[in-house]
Amino acid sequence: MLILMDPGATAEQVRTVMDVLEGAGVRAYVQDSPAATSILAPHASKALKADRIEPLEGVSRVVPITSPFKLASADAAPGRTIVDVRGVKVGGRDLTLMAGPCGVESREQLFTVARYVAESGARLLRAGAHKPRTSPYAFQGLGEEGLELLDQARREFDLGIVTEATEVETFDGVERVADLVQIGARNMQNFALLKRAGRSSRPVLLKRGPAATLEEWLFAAEYVLSEGNRNVILCERGIRTWSAHARNTLDVSVIPAAKALTHLPVIADPSHATGRRDLVIPCARAAVAAGADGIIVETHCQPSQALSDGPQALLPSDFLQMVGQVTAIRDLLVKDSPGATFCF
Amino acid sequence: MLILMDPGATAEQVRTVMDVLEGAGVRAYVQDSPAATSILAPHASKALKADRIEPLEGVSRVVPITSPFKLASADAAPGRTIVDVRGVKVGGRDLTLMAGPCGVESREQLFTVARYVAESGARLLRAGAHKPRTSPYAFQGLGEEGLELLDQARREFDLGIVTEATEVETFDGVERVADLVQIGARNMQNFALLKRAGRSSRPVLLKRGPAATLEEWLFAAEYVLSEGNRNVILCERGIRTWSAHARNTLDVSVIPAAKALTHLPVIADPSHATGRRDLVIPCARAAVAAGADGIIVETHCQPSQALSDGPQALLPSDFLQMVGQVTAIRDLLVKDSPGATFCF
Amino acid sequence: MLILMDPGATAEQVRTVMDVLEGAGVRAYVQDSPAATSILAPHASKALKADRIEPLEGVSRVVPITSPFKLASADAAPGRTIVDVRGVKVGGRDLTLMAGPCGVESREQLFTVARYVAESGARLLRAGAHKPRTSPYAFQGLGEEGLELLDQARREFDLGIVTEATEVETFDGVERVADLVQIGARNMQNFALLKRAGRSSRPVLLKRGPAATLEEWLFAAEYVLSEGNRNVILCERGIRTWSAHARNTLDVSVIPAAKALTHLPVIADPSHATGRRDLVIPCARAAVAAGADGIIVETHCQPSQALSDGPQALLPSDFLQMVGQVTAIRDLLVKDSPGATFCF
Amino acid sequence: MLILMDPGATAEQVRTVMDVLEGAGVRAYVQDSPAATSILAPHASKALKADRIEPLEGVSRVVPITSPFKLASADAAPGRTIVDVRGVKVGGRDLTLMAGPCGVESREQLFTVARYVAESGARLLRAGAHKPRTSPYAFQGLGEEGLELLDQARREFDLGIVTEATEVETFDGVERVADLVQIGARNMQNFALLKRAGRSSRPVLLKRGPAATLEEWLFAAEYVLSEGNRNVILCERGIRTWSAHARNTLDVSVIPAAKALTHLPVIADPSHATGRRDLVIPCARAAVAAGADGIIVETHCQPSQALSDGPQALLPSDFLQMVGQVTAIRDLLVKDSPGATFCF
Repeated sequence: MLILMDPGATAEQVRTVMDVLEGAGVRAYVQDSPAATSILAPHASKALKADRIEPLEGVSRVVPITSPFKLASADAAPGRTIVDVRGVKVGGRDLTLMAGPCGVESREQLFTVARYVAESGARLLRAGAHKPRTSPYAFQGLGEEGLELLDQARREFDLGIVTEATEVETFDGVERVADLVQIGARNMQNFALLKRAGRSSRPVLLKRGPAATLEEWLFAAEYVLSEGNRNVILCERGIRTWSAHARNTLDVSVIPAAKALTHLPVIADPSHATGRRDLVIPCARAAVAAGADGIIVETHCQPSQALSDGPQALLPSDFLQMVGQVTAIRDLLVKDSPGATFCF
Repeated sequence: MLILMDPGATAEQVRTVMDVLEGAGVRAYVQDSPAATSILAPHASKALKADRIEPLEGVSRVVPITSPFKLASADAAPGRTIVDVRGVKVGGRDLTLMAGPCGVESREQLFTVARYVAESGARLLRAGAHKPRTSPYAFQGLGEEGLELLDQARREFDLGIVTEATEVETFDGVERVADLVQIGARNMQNFALLKRAGRSSRPVLLKRGPAATLEEWLFAAEYVLSEGNRNVILCERGIRTWSAHARNTLDVSVIPAAKALTHLPVIADPSHATGRRDLVIPCARAAVAAGADGIIVETHCQPSQALSDGPQALLPSDFLQMVGQVTAIRDLLVKDSPGATFCF
Repeated sequence: MLILMDPGATAEQVRTVMDVLEGAGVRAYVQDSPAATSILAPHASKALKADRIEPLEGVSRVVPITSPFKLASADAAPGRTIVDVRGVKVGGRDLTLMAGPCGVESREQLFTVARYVAESGARLLRAGAHKPRTSPYAFQGLGEEGLELLDQARREFDLGIVTEATEVETFDGVERVADLVQIGARNMQNFALLKRAGRSSRPVLLKRGPAATLEEWLFAAEYVLSEGNRNVILCERGIRTWSAHARNTLDVSVIPAAKALTHLPVIADPSHATGRRDLVIPCARAAVAAGADGIIVETHCQPSQALSDGPQALLPSDFLQMVGQVTAIRDLLVKDSPGATFCF
Repeated sequence: MLILMDPGATAEQVRTVMDVLEGAGVRAYVQDSPAATSILAPHASKALKADRIEPLEGVSRVVPITSPFKLASADAAPGRTIVDVRGVKVGGRDLTLMAGPCGVESREQLFTVARYVAESGARLLRAGAHKPRTSPYAFQGLGEEGLELLDQARREFDLGIVTEATEVETFDGVERVADLVQIGARNMQNFALLKRAGRSSRPVLLKRGPAATLEEWLFAAEYVLSEGNRNVILCERGIRTWSAHARNTLDVSVIPAAKALTHLPVIADPSHATGRRDLVIPCARAAVAAGADGIIVETHCQPSQALSDGPQALLPSDFLQMVGQVTAIRDLLVKDSPGATFCF
């Protein structure tokens, strides 16, 4: 069982609970988090019942371990969660669009893209300043200089900034600039990073790992939630399979499957899911048609010259076509859904 | 190189070509098909050039082996192929809907479903009389009795019949009743069955195998096409991956990827792709949004009592909702596509 | 429930059983096979118990459907099955070696390989006369001419012949020549072919499909067994995954996992599992170390000139090294296993 | 191109190289690491040749970017690397055995296991003090207390300690106790952690990620190597596939494939690869037969009571049987390999 203590529980109250557990021969561990202290007693249910613990002072709740997602579960919230990203309501009626280059390369490159992103009506700009790269010799991003350029772009074009945090060490800098902190696919089970994100005041965009099951993905969200940050957006970005025509396989059915299990918003990244420019728009439409609350997409003014991920970046004209189509599909679904739960 | 002979080429003309090849020290094989004779000389290009062969009498064309899909390739047709199934134009402007129970179980069951399929506006009824089953002890279909019931349903409800051929031995019976002969996923590389389908006068619905690459799928189509039957419809039905929330993973990006390589129509089967009733409609919408020319779906009057595949069959009310939504998405795409190539 | 009738059960006895079932409102199907008639009543257990059926005349046994592999199950035999292939005891103490070229190409090629296979001490020659090929334009084997050459090779070198049956239509010819009929990976769920093999007097080598679970593989074996042929050898040949350094992924743990579930012998094919000559010997050793009862491997006198699958064929010197190493590993395991169950 | 500077190169020398690059219109990035400074100029080869850079003062070497693994590559070392772990030569003639419980749970549990590990002849004890767990509510290890117990076990039983570092924050503590620092599968692309491990004086055990290609795994090793730590051992621990009989699929062919590309030692973890106690020994034998230089395995005095991963832990008697068999297979291979390259 998991014993959640009241936020203001005293050390003495925690000690009393531990004494009862140890008196019953149960091994238990105290777990501290800024949100609240909890006590994990994995094998307790064989030795004693919840009603021995619940009446103790300072105990908030006793949760049986069989139900795995305590905070991410659809049951844990009265309705669907709407995450506010600089005024953009992710998970609400309107489709959210996040667009921009894979990485920040220069002021000129970033501002050129930011300008047409803003003109298209999208309100969130995505671009990496810290880039996780397979090879240590590949371009790893402009770092602090990139973050500074993003900060300028926000003011210049009135766009919210979505950018990736790749490590605990540089999280503070990212947090200062980001309106939405992205945790990348390869870091989905970087638990130290998830816990740091859970202690941030910024909302978190949690990409699904390339080989993560839906359950593991929700557990990763739980790591963030259980540290106190309740603003998590999930993002499907393609999974690794043997199917060879695209870089990854967009697992479109995980979108409605996730929305059935959790109250968190779910968006999709058709750029990384396919790695092929000609497949990005069809897959963006597919994700929205399956119920995605938003799309995050790579755009580039001159895709053939991008330092990373050029072959999958949309041209400006393609991007505008995509925006029109996915918005129309979202509207169609919302109109056809009387209850307005946005879980189609 | 592959040497395609004229349809009326004589045995003597074939012999002359073989003499030239053997004279150059090249091993060659004569391949007969009802469409035309061809001569396969896999290593010929090292020993002699096409212009030694092309002028010979009876030779239609010399194809270099490097280009693998001779007949399925998008280059091999002036535009997109539209396959006519009892008046329904698959691959044309309108979305095609095929619906019905997994298997024919009884006259009452079939007619109940057929009635509401017809009333929904769909014009093609799908149901299996011969069922390929993992276990030899599972219900294998009503066979000839099932085909007879399908024939009655066609007349009663004015519906085209889509039903599966599972083996060469029983193909004739299926062919008599089917307006569209289905080759199932597990038979995608049953080459004898593909060749038999290639000699049929009926159009063929070729499901993608659960572990088939796009290339292998198009090669399977090529087996049918190269026997003379040019009416092939491709059907994505989910692939086998480690992603565990659904029975298979709908590979939605294969739809635009296939349409880029071939002139054949492509549809999707969200029922087998997911195996979960609550995921069927979102995935049907996703497939159409990605450019699928049609949807084949399982419906059932009382899904909980179906002998096979009950958990994935739609209820009548769900089916009507799906028809409305996927039709609206198709219309939206067609309107947004000025060239009317239906390759969005 | 599955009701197995006695081999000599009369039509009247079958009719009586059906009457009892229908009287209880249970739908049932009569299934005929040369071995025996059976009656499939999938939902019977809800309506009536086995002891209502078992006492009826002509009934051999009533099997509950929950246990899926009736004949392949390890419980269904007193010990491990040893399949006799022209005197070679597959599944016994000694490791079985099957070797030869991928396809028969000419008398000279076949006899050159057969000679050194025989000299190495291996007693079974493998080579395809009918080749299932992804492309209709690829070399499909010499057919009857190839079978005739295999027949000659048997007599010349005193080797048992292992060759593939690709379709029901040409099965008779294969059966005349083969001492062991191979069912290829792509045909693992070609149920008509499996049933034909089940009616053959020859033992059957059943390759695992590239995306087949252990359960599906055993069900495929059950198709052969349930038609009366009890001599089935299973063969792991690599599965399709995203792991890209080899053509397939040798699933080495399926060997002990299969031997835990079934009494049938299990061998491995490291050539198709890897597609790379330098990985064949390490993988052959791995399979034997995991408990495989034999190895089937491609060898070629001049691998670079083979019409198909050249890059994976072993050179003669490599083959002899492999034989020495895998034999030594088998001996080591047998000596360390006092009970002599060959299930290490 | 990648320009590696001499260890003692001055800031001025670096500046001169940058000037030449910028003068040629090439974008370049200075990358500092404790080992040496390097300059990354990804698109330089189009604008200027290596012989413009190589003569400059302070330049050690200019590496073309086409060859991706600069330091891990088999070409980069005169022979196979042998990593010394507290006197145990990993990658040498003798097979290395690492064994112990999944996690440290108590002094009694650890010492009981350590005693029979030592008695079996194994010289390295593995156990986690920091455990990466899918759920935030699962037992995360004893942390510092666990490390202290490991330190005691080392002295008591004269065993080298193998334990996992899960985050940069707690790396120092792990480093103080570990003779071999493990980077777990989920952290294979935690680049901050890899770089920290690259600055450690301890050898590193790098597990392959559950969905990592061979190339990505070697790039992860390159992250460690390029920071200056040249003592890396690779560990295959099963990959994620759809094959359902085991928790993961042991990708046995990656062992010889890796040894063909890199000079680093390669071992295998059959416990995590299978998750089933009855498959551990067959898979351990398979890995060694494929050329693995060692085995890391979970053992437990009372597997049914382990807090994590109990079902896959070997019993003491099983462990002794495994040691005998895998040692015998290694000896057999070494004897059969005259050149003693240990790359069989």
